[in-house]
Amino acid sequence: MAMYVFSRRVTAGSTQLTAFRYATTCWRNYSTSFREERDTFGPILVPSDKLWGAQTQRSLQNFDIGGDRERMPEPIIRAFGVLKKCAAKVNMEYGLDQSIGKAIMQAAQEVAEGKLNQHFPLVVWQTGSGTQSNMNANEVIANRAAEILGHKRGEKFVHPNDHVNRSQSSNDTFPTVMHIATAMEVNSRLVPNLKTLHSSLQQKSDEFKDIVKIGRTHTQDATPLTLGQEFSGYSTQVKYGIERVLCTLPHMYQLAQGGTAVGTGLNTKKGFDVKIAAAVADETNLPFVTAENKFEALAAHDAFVETSGALNTVATSLMKIANDIRLLGSGPRCGLGELILPENEPGSSIMPGKVNPTQCEAITMVCAQVMGNNVAITVGGSNGHFELNVFKPMIASALLHSVRLLGDASASFEKNCVRGIEANRERISKLLHESLMLVTSLNPKIGYDNAAAVAKKAHKEGSTLKDAALKLGVLTSEEFDNLVVPGKMIGPSD
Amino acid sequence: MAMYVFSRRVTAGSTQLTAFRYATTCWRNYSTSFREERDTFGPILVPSDKLWGAQTQRSLQNFDIGGDRERMPEPIIRAFGVLKKCAAKVNMEYGLDQSIGKAIMQAAQEVAEGKLNQHFPLVVWQTGSGTQSNMNANEVIANRAAEILGHKRGEKFVHPNDHVNRSQSSNDTFPTVMHIATAMEVNSRLVPNLKTLHSSLQQKSDEFKDIVKIGRTHTQDATPLTLGQEFSGYSTQVKYGIERVLCTLPHMYQLAQGGTAVGTGLNTKKGFDVKIAAAVADETNLPFVTAENKFEALAAHDAFVETSGALNTVATSLMKIANDIRLLGSGPRCGLGELILPENEPGSSIMPGKVNPTQCEAITMVCAQVMGNNVAITVGGSNGHFELNVFKPMIASALLHSVRLLGDASASFEKNCVRGIEANRERISKLLHESLMLVTSLNPKIGYDNAAAVAKKAHKEGSTLKDAALKLGVLTSEEFDNLVVPGKMIGPSD
Amino acid sequence: MAMYVFSRRVTAGSTQLTAFRYATTCWRNYSTSFREERDTFGPILVPSDKLWGAQTQRSLQNFDIGGDRERMPEPIIRAFGVLKKCAAKVNMEYGLDQSIGKAIMQAAQEVAEGKLNQHFPLVVWQTGSGTQSNMNANEVIANRAAEILGHKRGEKFVHPNDHVNRSQSSNDTFPTVMHIATAMEVNSRLVPNLKTLHSSLQQKSDEFKDIVKIGRTHTQDATPLTLGQEFSGYSTQVKYGIERVLCTLPHMYQLAQGGTAVGTGLNTKKGFDVKIAAAVADETNLPFVTAENKFEALAAHDAFVETSGALNTVATSLMKIANDIRLLGSGPRCGLGELILPENEPGSSIMPGKVNPTQCEAITMVCAQVMGNNVAITVGGSNGHFELNVFKPMIASALLHSVRLLGDASASFEKNCVRGIEANRERISKLLHESLMLVTSLNPKIGYDNAAAVAKKAHKEGSTLKDAALKLGVLTSEEFDNLVVPGKMIGPSD
Amino acid sequence: MAMYVFSRRVTAGSTQLTAFRYATTCWRNYSTSFREERDTFGPILVPSDKLWGAQTQRSLQNFDIGGDRERMPEPIIRAFGVLKKCAAKVNMEYGLDQSIGKAIMQAAQEVAEGKLNQHFPLVVWQTGSGTQSNMNANEVIANRAAEILGHKRGEKFVHPNDHVNRSQSSNDTFPTVMHIATAMEVNSRLVPNLKTLHSSLQQKSDEFKDIVKIGRTHTQDATPLTLGQEFSGYSTQVKYGIERVLCTLPHMYQLAQGGTAVGTGLNTKKGFDVKIAAAVADETNLPFVTAENKFEALAAHDAFVETSGALNTVATSLMKIANDIRLLGSGPRCGLGELILPENEPGSSIMPGKVNPTQCEAITMVCAQVMGNNVAITVGGSNGHFELNVFKPMIASALLHSVRLLGDASASFEKNCVRGIEANRERISKLLHESLMLVTSLNPKIGYDNAAAVAKKAHKEGSTLKDAALKLGVLTSEEFDNLVVPGKMIGPSD
Repeated sequence: MAMYVFSRRVTAGSTQLTAFRYATTCWRNYSTSFREERDTFGPILVPSDKLWGAQTQRSLQNFDIGGDRERMPEPIIRAFGVLKKCAAKVNMEYGLDQSIGKAIMQAAQEVAEGKLNQHFPLVVWQTGSGTQSNMNANEVIANRAAEILGHKRGEKFVHPNDHVNRSQSSNDTFPTVMHIATAMEVNSRLVPNLKTLHSSLQQKSDEFKDIVKIGRTHTQDATPLTLGQEFSGYSTQVKYGIERVLCTLPHMYQLAQGGTAVGTGLNTKKGFDVKIAAAVADETNLPFVTAENKFEALAAHDAFVETSGALNTVATSLMKIANDIRLLGSGPRCGLGELILPENEPGSSIMPGKVNPTQCEAITMVCAQVMGNNVAITVGGSNGHFELNVFKPMIASALLHSVRLLGDASASFEKNCVRGIEANRERISKLLHESLMLVTSLNPKIGYDNAAAVAKKAHKEGSTLKDAALKLGVLTSEEFDNLVVPGKMIGPSD
Repeated sequence: MAMYVFSRRVTAGSTQLTAFRYATTCWRNYSTSFREERDTFGPILVPSDKLWGAQTQRSLQNFDIGGDRERMPEPIIRAFGVLKKCAAKVNMEYGLDQSIGKAIMQAAQEVAEGKLNQHFPLVVWQTGSGTQSNMNANEVIANRAAEILGHKRGEKFVHPNDHVNRSQSSNDTFPTVMHIATAMEVNSRLVPNLKTLHSSLQQKSDEFKDIVKIGRTHTQDATPLTLGQEFSGYSTQVKYGIERVLCTLPHMYQLAQGGTAVGTGLNTKKGFDVKIAAAVADETNLPFVTAENKFEALAAHDAFVETSGALNTVATSLMKIANDIRLLGSGPRCGLGELILPENEPGSSIMPGKVNPTQCEAITMVCAQVMGNNVAITVGGSNGHFELNVFKPMIASALLHSVRLLGDASASFEKNCVRGIEANRERISKLLHESLMLVTSLNPKIGYDNAAAVAKKAHKEGSTLKDAALKLGVLTSEEFDNLVVPGKMIGPSD
Repeated sequence: MAMYVFSRRVTAGSTQLTAFRYATTCWRNYSTSFREERDTFGPILVPSDKLWGAQTQRSLQNFDIGGDRERMPEPIIRAFGVLKKCAAKVNMEYGLDQSIGKAIMQAAQEVAEGKLNQHFPLVVWQTGSGTQSNMNANEVIANRAAEILGHKRGEKFVHPNDHVNRSQSSNDTFPTVMHIATAMEVNSRLVPNLKTLHSSLQQKSDEFKDIVKIGRTHTQDATPLTLGQEFSGYSTQVKYGIERVLCTLPHMYQLAQGGTAVGTGLNTKKGFDVKIAAAVADETNLPFVTAENKFEALAAHDAFVETSGALNTVATSLMKIANDIRLLGSGPRCGLGELILPENEPGSSIMPGKVNPTQCEAITMVCAQVMGNNVAITVGGSNGHFELNVFKPMIASALLHSVRLLGDASASFEKNCVRGIEANRERISKLLHESLMLVTSLNPKIGYDNAAAVAKKAHKEGSTLKDAALKLGVLTSEEFDNLVVPGKMIGPSD
Repeated sequence: MAMYVFSRRVTAGSTQLTAFRYATTCWRNYSTSFREERDTFGPILVPSDKLWGAQTQRSLQNFDIGGDRERMPEPIIRAFGVLKKCAAKVNMEYGLDQSIGKAIMQAAQEVAEGKLNQHFPLVVWQTGSGTQSNMNANEVIANRAAEILGHKRGEKFVHPNDHVNRSQSSNDTFPTVMHIATAMEVNSRLVPNLKTLHSSLQQKSDEFKDIVKIGRTHTQDATPLTLGQEFSGYSTQVKYGIERVLCTLPHMYQLAQGGTAVGTGLNTKKGFDVKIAAAVADETNLPFVTAENKFEALAAHDAFVETSGALNTVATSLMKIANDIRLLGSGPRCGLGELILPENEPGSSIMPGKVNPTQCEAITMVCAQVMGNNVAITVGGSNGHFELNVFKPMIASALLHSVRLLGDASASFEKNCVRGIEANRERISKLLHESLMLVTSLNPKIGYDNAAAVAKKAHKEGSTLKDAALKLGVLTSEEFDNLVVPGKMIGPSD
């Protein structure tokens, strides 16, 4: 073990091990002590307090892109824990040493639980196969497993390749963890939060079912509907959104594991692919199966483009809903003012009553980003070459970003906005009864031409329909009141 | 009937009927004879030989955007024929005069068959509800039905609104024809052509199942696979693509009809929505049903964003496949040259043997446009306000554009390229046996270190693996030949 | 010359000349008479009344994608006319026979004027180099020039390659016409229409400069501004948009011509590139120059991605402006109602006063399509390989589509909407004076806490600020009237 | 000061101050000690060791979206430091207490230097105006300035609003810091790295200027060019990319500061806007000016869409370049193999010689994300309402993400790939001389027909052109060698 002073930038072209990239934000108290690790390029220094090995260290030095916030998303790291645990378990069936296998399982479990996150420093912008993150996982688990068995880091008592990565290739592990991570995040974060949002919108729809209000088409006054009907549109959008996302999961549940380098399964045993998918299914309680065609599973990531398309549709829905809600809640005096939104923060120190629809703003921003990520994923997904798509980390990162943001934002929007929305019944009623388009219900009684004359007079004079009708003498006050009943205009007739 | 000379540009702000837009390309022998039609804005001149009425004419003058190639897509026009025919049929059950109803059905049938296309001059870039195209259909069918019944155009013996549009609003008819047109085009054009492409790729996979070739990952040489396995990845992508598109159709089969102005169904009778969906299903042999929630069906077009997402995924797949095929077919002397693509046209008058992969180029260009249209549809879909999304014509046009292009390009690609692809067996074999990475199969016999030494020596000296192995004396010629057998490297071991 | 009956579909794999694709829409009275034309693939039948030759005919048969509305955009055809005319002119300086050269110039001029449009049947979705459209131009001009000189079509007295395409390759002509067509459309259609729109918005800004109104941030009531100030934001957006588009033209003015096959200029003479750029500049009155680097000019179309980025920005601006205008014009009774938009068509036969903001809808739909086209162009632009980008026709078509739509829609929006916008002064004043946020101007006099108390009381009781202030006794009626003057709140203080 | 135990989730609807969100990754040793801070919503607990105040704390609780990696980008935080320092300086000219002003300047300087980063915990997904981050800056600077002056946190001796935010509104500060941060990052990170990349590509172009190689169009063999010419295309793309980015900066240099709430400048003094822009220019050495129209500057972010469009173009260029380089470097035995790329990491433990083009992969993934971010920014930019665009944090975050990734990836690509590229001269020469298309140079001597016969014979028989020519007896060996000289085919003739 040695103490060195290192410069931040590697000398160009240097193949020697003289450099270490200091991360700027979180590792403030980094070690200045290092140990030597080796790979086929030779020895390289690694911080003593880190579990990673040579290949991780090389990636750290070669890909100084984006800083810490660009590190491989945590769900990928955790999925590596799940996968490596399952691989060790299945490999033991195929002859892996039991004590080493068990130590790997224990170490992998720690990774799955997020306990070793600080040992995964690599960024998304690395090799397009995710090989370096696979090796990061192999190296960390190998060193940790060795420690569990009483050996030292770097000695390779447990070998990253021969033991931890046994029967695997980055080319099948990385797509596998992409699928595991996404399916877990979708099931644990996105879908539950969308369901809660759906329930909350449905509850509002029920709560508002008797409030008749003006409809608006082309942003212009139109025939009435109930506020409950309006919210039923929103809740239906979210309900369908959940269906859309779930509808894409069957392809996501297909795991590439067992395809190894190019999809053939070279260096695995027959049946390995089925067993490992079963083990992952068991570990995660999700219905993973082995991919029907491993060549497709390595060379393309259409499953991600498909799921991203569903998320894009959900974003479209949420954008529409949040936009409506902020416009219906606009005011308090000079907007539409039909909804009263929860007050969560001071909107302004100057003007009381100014409640900004900040939750609508957060979620619509999220929607815009999800739409953008969909394009990034599409571009990445379409650019595979031959046996391997090498936009994997970007595709995974962008989709997990979208899943996380949509899930969290849906929860926040539900909790801090939708749940607390109230109808401004007085305002709704006032607008409804001012509307000229209630004249429609006079058609059967006085005919279209007379009705039109009433409406035009009211519009021109700024009066009520009733005033206009009475002035024109086309019907009596009682007749008017009997006929113009918005509550009868909200459905088909018998 | 009168003869006029008109200037092309309407005088700004003019509400009088002094103008007529001459289309530039197809109506070269336009009439200079006009008749007067009327709407609530007053009279307006319409070409005598056209069936359309006042509202169509106004739109023609007010939306001089994009020229003839931007006219509402034909599948929309035909779907209006289907819908109006069904509406007349159902309306007769609810009391529409039988002779008028039958004449409408006959006229609508002509629209459905494309016989009256020249009477639909309006462009996509009109009112966002598609109202003007709905009125175009109403006016044409009304005038045509009147003629069938022995009356003159413009007399409104059959009324565009009261008869043809009875129990309908643009707000429910336009989304309805969007869904009908898309479902018909997907089923009649896209899916069959994708299925043919899938079969053709699958057939190639079978045909090439015994051809062992070099694999490529990261664009670099990798372990071998069969050409059949490589094509199995492509055929799987297309197979899943078909599934993805079909998976989105249930929402597309939901029809808005019966929602009228804002989704409430005002001015319809109970049951009208169910009956009309059944009539459309009957007419088209597709499983249309009435939309579960009419508010969602008018205010959002998530179903289009969803289907577009599936098309986007198909585009991603086809981009990958066509890219691979042109790269594998690159050459003839200085490329990869593993595939021989059909020669369809002279590539160059200078160089014999230059076959350009033009079908790959056409389909990848289509894919790029489909990806772009997906964004257009997403933006349109997310921008609805209140009870009505007013990006309808653009959304419909962009999706139908994508469906048409993908369908046609898949057929062209299959017929003019995939079907005729041949393997260059000699070239494939040569590359395979030059590959250094076959050394992998020596590992069990001579160990990794010796195998690596063999490969490094061969790489350094530009020799074959066998030469290097023999020079190093690690095994005999016979042993080498027994061990290095690419055909054994294409699957898991027993 | 022979008479045949042809089936629409070419027999698969047929290399014989037995087929002809009948276009469905415009060539209703197609000839059933054909002549034989030849290329290096052999003879092929071409309709007698068409000027095109063998290679055009092959493309027509091999690329049955999208139908007539997908034909190569007319500005490209016209630009081919310009280019071929200039090429003949320069080639005469380098030895091209004068009589042939002059006939080519005359024929090319007819193409430039759009007189021969019906002889350009090819679609965008062809070879990615545009070779087939280049040959279409060569063939049409050769046959037409031959006729001018008294020779027959198909005899090649004027040769498509040796004469019309002399010193050229599709690889440099197609990028050249892409640039010519785009620069001409931008200068003649887009920029003038944006300038008119800018003037009109600026005029409204001036017209409304004294109308003080409520401001809105977060869709919520905010401090006041003038309606003129609000419109000045819009006019500034359009002004900057024009600058943005113009800023991209220098790269668009670079012509690839002279690069020939791969950018080297093989088979041209030194100086040819400079002369032809000068000739095109002279012909078009636009400052075209020869591209500084021909390799970039063939292999990439970054100039199109750049210009599309500017159009995307313009679309963003117009989307915002049109959205604001329709929301400010929402109503007439139940919306914001501050603007009165021109009435161009009946909005509804039921409700008088319902004016739909249809021009806003058309232009926002256009903006969505432009955003989508930007992605299509980006995908195409990023996918070039080696010496040639082969997404050329799609890139050109999508950009010209965006230019045309934005130009036309800006004109329509200006003429049919912006120009006629009026302020609803009464409504604006009413909303302004109801606003609670005028309380801000009391701060200096009565302090923040008292001001807040006034506003909160008014909000709670639904009263005016003045009522609340007087009830609280914090100032007199006169004091209130002196202090609360919205017109003093619209700028910084001295 | 009190000690509490808090649950992670706020009780729904609770307006009490009982919660604190524990960040998971970096604040492992968070305090369990809190102090009370206040805003107009009342008191709230804040961690004692943090400088932020009540409004920051509320945002932290209300926007639990995305976790720590979604925190507002550091360049925004630093730009707040710059702005608040300048504001204090200018405010002192307008009467702000000197000692308070100086303390604010000192505290703001610490923010500008990144020393107080850990006191900025808010995420991007908050209010769309960025108000909460503006208040975060105000609160941190106020508390820190108070400490500098010997006062306690939370006492508001220096007031966040009255002192730090004096003459400002979030509505002008946030756009201002967006512009400052972007202009600084573009100038300090992106442009220098692109310039280095350009130099490196240009140097390679010079280095390779005499290496004649086969050209490739449509991925097929074409006429030759030099490898230097090929790289000159790449260097030109990057050169133009730099121009494109710089060309957008004039709009980015316009600062909104001085517009306050809606753009009018209410509550500022005349001249404040000009002075503060000058102060920021002075502080940053960048040519910032006050925005010509403050209404545009608050309500729209077209400047971001514009710059993002330029970045999108740069991404398009880099995607093309990196794709070419990995394809030209494909092999080592079974690819094109013309380039030898630097070896940075072991590509595989099995196969020596497998160098994966990992830097190409990282940068193309970055390009895909930048293309996606462009769409996100476009969607956000187009969705402003009235006087304020409320997609500000997302727009800023996405653009800064793109700038950072493109800048870092360009540096990494240059250092770890481009700089070390070598030409495989032997391979290049071999491919060049095998190419059939050199036959072109025989045309003048033996005529096109004979030349074609030579090429066809060579293609059919798999022989060299020379062999075929000699067998056909069309010229002698000496004649062939004199004529077929690729080095003469790389430019126009005299």
